[in-house]
Amino acid sequence: MRTPPIMGFPATSQDDYQLNVIRILQHAARSFGKQEVVSIRPDGTKLRFTYQSTYDRVKKLGNALSAMGAEIGDRIGVLDWNTHRHLEAYFGIPGIGSVLLLLNIRLAPPDLSYVVNHAETKFILVDETLIPIAEAIAGQCDTVKGYIILTDKDLSEIKTSLSPVYSYEKLVAEADENIQWPELDEKSAYGACYTTGTTGRPKGVYYSHRNVYLHAMTIGTNAEMTSNDCFYQLVPMFHALGWGMPQATFLIGAKYVLPGMYNIADLGSLAEPLVSEGVTVSAGAPALFMPMLEYIRKLDKKPDLKGARFLSGASEPSLALMKDYFKLTGAEIVHAYGATETTPLVTINKLKPWLAEDLSEDEQWDLKRKQGYPVVGLDVKIVDHEEKEVPYDGKSPGEILIRGPWITGSYYNAPGSENQFTEDGYWRSGDAGTMDAEGYIKITDRVKDLIKSGGEWISSVDMENETMAHHGVLEAAVTGVVHPKWEERPVVLVVPRETDKQTLTKEDIIEHLAKKFAKWQLPEAVIFVDAIPKTSVGKFDKKVIREQYKNIYS
Amino acid sequence: MRTPPIMGFPATSQDDYQLNVIRILQHAARSFGKQEVVSIRPDGTKLRFTYQSTYDRVKKLGNALSAMGAEIGDRIGVLDWNTHRHLEAYFGIPGIGSVLLLLNIRLAPPDLSYVVNHAETKFILVDETLIPIAEAIAGQCDTVKGYIILTDKDLSEIKTSLSPVYSYEKLVAEADENIQWPELDEKSAYGACYTTGTTGRPKGVYYSHRNVYLHAMTIGTNAEMTSNDCFYQLVPMFHALGWGMPQATFLIGAKYVLPGMYNIADLGSLAEPLVSEGVTVSAGAPALFMPMLEYIRKLDKKPDLKGARFLSGASEPSLALMKDYFKLTGAEIVHAYGATETTPLVTINKLKPWLAEDLSEDEQWDLKRKQGYPVVGLDVKIVDHEEKEVPYDGKSPGEILIRGPWITGSYYNAPGSENQFTEDGYWRSGDAGTMDAEGYIKITDRVKDLIKSGGEWISSVDMENETMAHHGVLEAAVTGVVHPKWEERPVVLVVPRETDKQTLTKEDIIEHLAKKFAKWQLPEAVIFVDAIPKTSVGKFDKKVIREQYKNIYS
Repeated sequence: MRTPPIMGFPATSQDDYQLNVIRILQHAARSFGKQEVVSIRPDGTKLRFTYQSTYDRVKKLGNALSAMGAEIGDRIGVLDWNTHRHLEAYFGIPGIGSVLLLLNIRLAPPDLSYVVNHAETKFILVDETLIPIAEAIAGQCDTVKGYIILTDKDLSEIKTSLSPVYSYEKLVAEADENIQWPELDEKSAYGACYTTGTTGRPKGVYYSHRNVYLHAMTIGTNAEMTSNDCFYQLVPMFHALGWGMPQATFLIGAKYVLPGMYNIADLGSLAEPLVSEGVTVSAGAPALFMPMLEYIRKLDKKPDLKGARFLSGASEPSLALMKDYFKLTGAEIVHAYGATETTPLVTINKLKPWLAEDLSEDEQWDLKRKQGYPVVGLDVKIVDHEEKEVPYDGKSPGEILIRGPWITGSYYNAPGSENQFTEDGYWRSGDAGTMDAEGYIKITDRVKDLIKSGGEWISSVDMENETMAHHGVLEAAVTGVVHPKWEERPVVLVVPRETDKQTLTKEDIIEHLAKKFAKWQLPEAVIFVDAIPKTSVGKFDKKVIREQYKNIYS
Repeated sequence: MRTPPIMGFPATSQDDYQLNVIRILQHAARSFGKQEVVSIRPDGTKLRFTYQSTYDRVKKLGNALSAMGAEIGDRIGVLDWNTHRHLEAYFGIPGIGSVLLLLNIRLAPPDLSYVVNHAETKFILVDETLIPIAEAIAGQCDTVKGYIILTDKDLSEIKTSLSPVYSYEKLVAEADENIQWPELDEKSAYGACYTTGTTGRPKGVYYSHRNVYLHAMTIGTNAEMTSNDCFYQLVPMFHALGWGMPQATFLIGAKYVLPGMYNIADLGSLAEPLVSEGVTVSAGAPALFMPMLEYIRKLDKKPDLKGARFLSGASEPSLALMKDYFKLTGAEIVHAYGATETTPLVTINKLKPWLAEDLSEDEQWDLKRKQGYPVVGLDVKIVDHEEKEVPYDGKSPGEILIRGPWITGSYYNAPGSENQFTEDGYWRSGDAGTMDAEGYIKITDRVKDLIKSGGEWISSVDMENETMAHHGVLEAAVTGVVHPKWEERPVVLVVPRETDKQTLTKEDIIEHLAKKFAKWQLPEAVIFVDAIPKTSVGKFDKKVIREQYKNIYS
């Protein structure tokens, strides 16, 4: 990116010592050998490992894969839940220089086979319960030379059309425990995740060892974990390297708990380790924390999780969710932000010490809804559509651009995706948001939902919410429509309530919006309709609306 | 070092994003702008800065230095106490690509001028109180083009023979606050410290930006600091980059307190900020913590430092020191180990969670006397004199070898120093120690104090201490002397107590030693003398003893 760096005075440091993720486990096994790793089986029984026994199995896995023909640079896929074998793959596959390809078990078969083929995958590790997923794509995956079945059973008990198949446990049992890990260049790919945007094919992010190592250290300096903590791996390990938590946990020396094949319908099993294993840190999404809270709400004896921190990403946790967790269990929901392209940690929402003094309790809760401030190590800016930085006043929206050692600089072999990066190396997140004077970022929209008007942006989501907040409005949609002078201007569609059909006026709506929006942002067009066009899944169909009203301003 | 690394599959990460220390401050000012920096003046008054105002001054310093002619790669020396200006130099000098040369104010003038000349220093920043030190060497320092005086006074009030001189504050006041930092290659030197071994000239360790950045992250993941902490910079900033604490503190976002020109005779001033500023973390040596404890002991009201951690290096803190700190103040002394060559963090002594359960209180205290376990990120091994790893049983001594991203790989321009590194890139620490099964290291001797006997080592320090523990012994020295068969064997010189002169025998001594040493380690030669040869500073003169008894075994 940008201009090539300038070499200064030579240093005497061991700068040729490569940041290699296998060393994290190797050193952790040396310094925290007896630390626990707990893996929960589908039947609820628990397997107990240590850092040392995990590393011993990883060494054998490395030897076994090499013996099968896995070489430096080969891509090896994994289809698994959050299990100890998945964890071993996290270290063993990149340890021998192959690439850990994390396969999203929720992908539709055409997308999944696209990923496997795009990566030219050589082997796939697949959990016995996920064999049908592999079988559904195997016919389309010509590069795959074999399937390694993750099971405690004998291979003869496994019925599958996959071929050839190998038993993971047998391979590991028979392999040598002594290994000489290759000295990999830190810029070599450690692993890959494919993004699943709403448009186009999945795109590959190939994380270097350096990227993963530095990100693990950054989790360490930001998540405030120590070797006295116990981390619970709720976030799927096929999402953005499991949010970098497996590598970070080992770097720090904390206890590590794997929920295995968990079922969101069986919240009892999912919540059980919180207390029995002494969980102090976890990471997941509101979609998971919310039903867990509902489960906890019904318990006679609430779990005591005082001091625990649950990192929450993907979508914004509601204030009620955060408050109730704290009230019922003592656990704190910590809002964070990132994406597959960012490994993922970009921002984290912790309360700065002076804000703990300056803000009222309500203000502190309100602040927690923001995505947080950028972690040290990343360049983060918010720009308008001319790529000029917006004022950091907590009000001016723009697109969030991110640059740094754990941010992707391209998509692998994806022609046409170059425009997702700026010339000076920032990744365009596609997320629109504001930053306040303290650096806290608030995501407001996807950029495509912003209306570009005269060099400034208007949030269609904000305007939609504000319109719907009017007591006479049943439903409202806001879309940007082409304007000859201002580029785009908002069009507001309103479905009035039955009771207000005769009385609600355009002026009422504009007057209502004026309380929150600047004058230049207020819509010229407020149109009353009986229904708003919707897509098959029930979302507002902005494409249809835009087409329907495209000439309203010309 | 070693074989060149192998490149695997290409990654898409931004691996060309350079780890540059100025970014730590830049990002910290963005995300923790209001965090406090406190600098204490010699008169006890306190200057209060923030991260943001510190960064503003650093930007001006960068511009001022550039305007004076400081260029990428130039070495710029600093002679200062732990002040805010020293802190600014830590970021401003390397920020513009020059090298921060930390000058030890305790060095004798010939050594100090040697360092300044060896580094070909272009400018020197010198505190007004230290001007005599600069004046004493200025005549020998031809490369120095100017002296920048660190003072709040007007330059006209400063009397000095140094020439030309500049006022730091005037330069900063007049400089532009906008700066474009150069994009430095991360392998460029950030700063340099010179080691001061007992033999030979000082040797230069030139730390790269990458080295310093990774070390700061490692402090972050090991010192368990958060933005709620308050760090007190007791360890001199001219020692091993101030132990990497300034960079680490900013990376983490903690409050930072600088004691300024402190005087170990004025312990009241030194202890005052502990409570008034709310110190929670510090770093220093027993030589400093010990008199501070004596001071605290005399206070009617002991400071409440519950939860505070004082990292302690340089020499072993006594058990009494650690216990009394904890008892009187609640503060914990955390033993750590490192050297100028290691930036310095190599080991840290924290109690692992399972040891908190397994060990009795006394055993836990005893464990705290060890130097600790190696941090994740470093290869550490202990080898015998054939470079074979010793058993990690807590008993077998050997030399500690260290390799990793923040370890020096050479000394700058120091012919003949190559033998301090192994072929595969380890730095030979010269320290002898043991490692136990949990990875805790205990330093026992300097390697040169070990006696090589038949492929094994005998600790002369241990044997000396044990001999002196005999009630009839006034003083004893143990030295290795050449032996035709075993390479070396110990010779024990004993000065008996006046009362035991007639009765103490060689057999008494050997019988006494046999309680602690293996049979093969016991000395053949125990020699009673009236006095042990000593050096001018009162240490046993091993060289003279070795010469005197060189033929005793042949």
